[in-house]
Amino acid sequence: MHAYGDLAERLRTFAVQRDWEQFHTPKNLAMALSGEVGELVAELQWLTPKESASVMADPEAGARVRAELADIFLYLTRLADVLGVDLLQAAHDKIADNERRYDAEAYRGSARKAPPLA
Amino acid sequence: MHAYGDLAERLRTFAVQRDWEQFHTPKNLAMALSGEVGELVAELQWLTPKESASVMADPEAGARVRAELADIFLYLTRLADVLGVDLLQAAHDKIADNERRYDAEAYRGSARKAPPLA
Amino acid sequence: MHAYGDLAERLRTFAVQRDWEQFHTPKNLAMALSGEVGELVAELQWLTPKESASVMADPEAGARVRAELADIFLYLTRLADVLGVDLLQAAHDKIADNERRYDAEAYRGSARKAPPLA
Amino acid sequence: MHAYGDLAERLRTFAVQRDWEQFHTPKNLAMALSGEVGELVAELQWLTPKESASVMADPEAGARVRAELADIFLYLTRLADVLGVDLLQAAHDKIADNERRYDAEAYRGSARKAPPLA
Repeated sequence: MHAYGDLAERLRTFAVQRDWEQFHTPKNLAMALSGEVGELVAELQWLTPKESASVMADPEAGARVRAELADIFLYLTRLADVLGVDLLQAAHDKIADNERRYDAEAYRGSARKAPPLA
Repeated sequence: MHAYGDLAERLRTFAVQRDWEQFHTPKNLAMALSGEVGELVAELQWLTPKESASVMADPEAGARVRAELADIFLYLTRLADVLGVDLLQAAHDKIADNERRYDAEAYRGSARKAPPLA
Repeated sequence: MHAYGDLAERLRTFAVQRDWEQFHTPKNLAMALSGEVGELVAELQWLTPKESASVMADPEAGARVRAELADIFLYLTRLADVLGVDLLQAAHDKIADNERRYDAEAYRGSARKAPPLA
Repeated sequence: MHAYGDLAERLRTFAVQRDWEQFHTPKNLAMALSGEVGELVAELQWLTPKESASVMADPEAGARVRAELADIFLYLTRLADVLGVDLLQAAHDKIADNERRYDAEAYRGSARKAPPLA
């Protein structure tokens, strides 16, 4: 069982050992993150929403999707670390805002009235 | 101090209470993720790499960047949860691959030879 | 009736008159393009594929989608111009490749075998 | 010398001949567009802004960038066509707005005050 904090630390060491910190500016990392999200989106682009829900049942497509999610998480974690942002705390702060903002009763079943998570 | 697993659980409850699970297909969530990354990229697009490294020093821009990172993390976590992917484990598997694949000595200082994280 | 070449010229003049050429590096413009595509994707993220096909029937959503398509086209045109790429010729070269590569009979009706345009 | 209108027509024929119109919903095409932009961004992510300005001087990287620009243009053109949007007219309408909104004198040299194109 991993703790989230270990991941940022591991990526920092990875970058230091290869002298790649020089490339890990927020601007560059945001671009890398965007590129990885593009690869994930490409895996799902021709599927119907329903087909997308069972994409993990196909071993090859499932492995690619899992790897893309990992890539996105690696760059997101590295970017937050470089910026000095506590990503887990920031996420809990945001979902707490949303819990207040989108009252469960008022927004029940409506996706057009509000962005469902963020 | 938060544990990563609590975040996925909190988002699941949030969706269930609003009956928004119906909108949270992998296809839709991947699009939402892509949209949030676009907002983050927009915060950094006119900055030089060097300026991007101190974006958090500006209270307003810093708050926006922190919120965008949070939004991305929320959708990424929700997407992985819906797909049944252990995001933290997938990320450690991927960085372990990269540690083997990009030998620290051979790749030292070179960003053009290899994608630095993923 | 506009010709495509006039658009690149108009954007060049726009940038020169504001001394914004200094910001229009390919790196920055690719980020701006990515941000605009994120905004377009956000317009369609919670719609079903079928609902997305009639998004222009809603005057407000339709106007937003039209404006996002325009923004994407502006940045794409500016980026190609800065890079010295004849975008229209490059597009015809690519679709000519695809016409050869994806034989109409062999690929009929199958989206999973091949990326449908590019 | 190509006219822009011919490109949309050529893509429509390409889709009809392969019976791929069924996959070309606005939602799917927006995802495909997003994926292609991700590939373009990936080409430039580790370059400095200055290096990105001479990316076409490298024959291999230049060919990849030209092909990515083409892919983006193909999907953008197809998406606008499916939505019934006159892309060239929409772009001119938007740049006309921007010419009024961002007075050349007031905004000279400032990228932080305003988004430079759109």
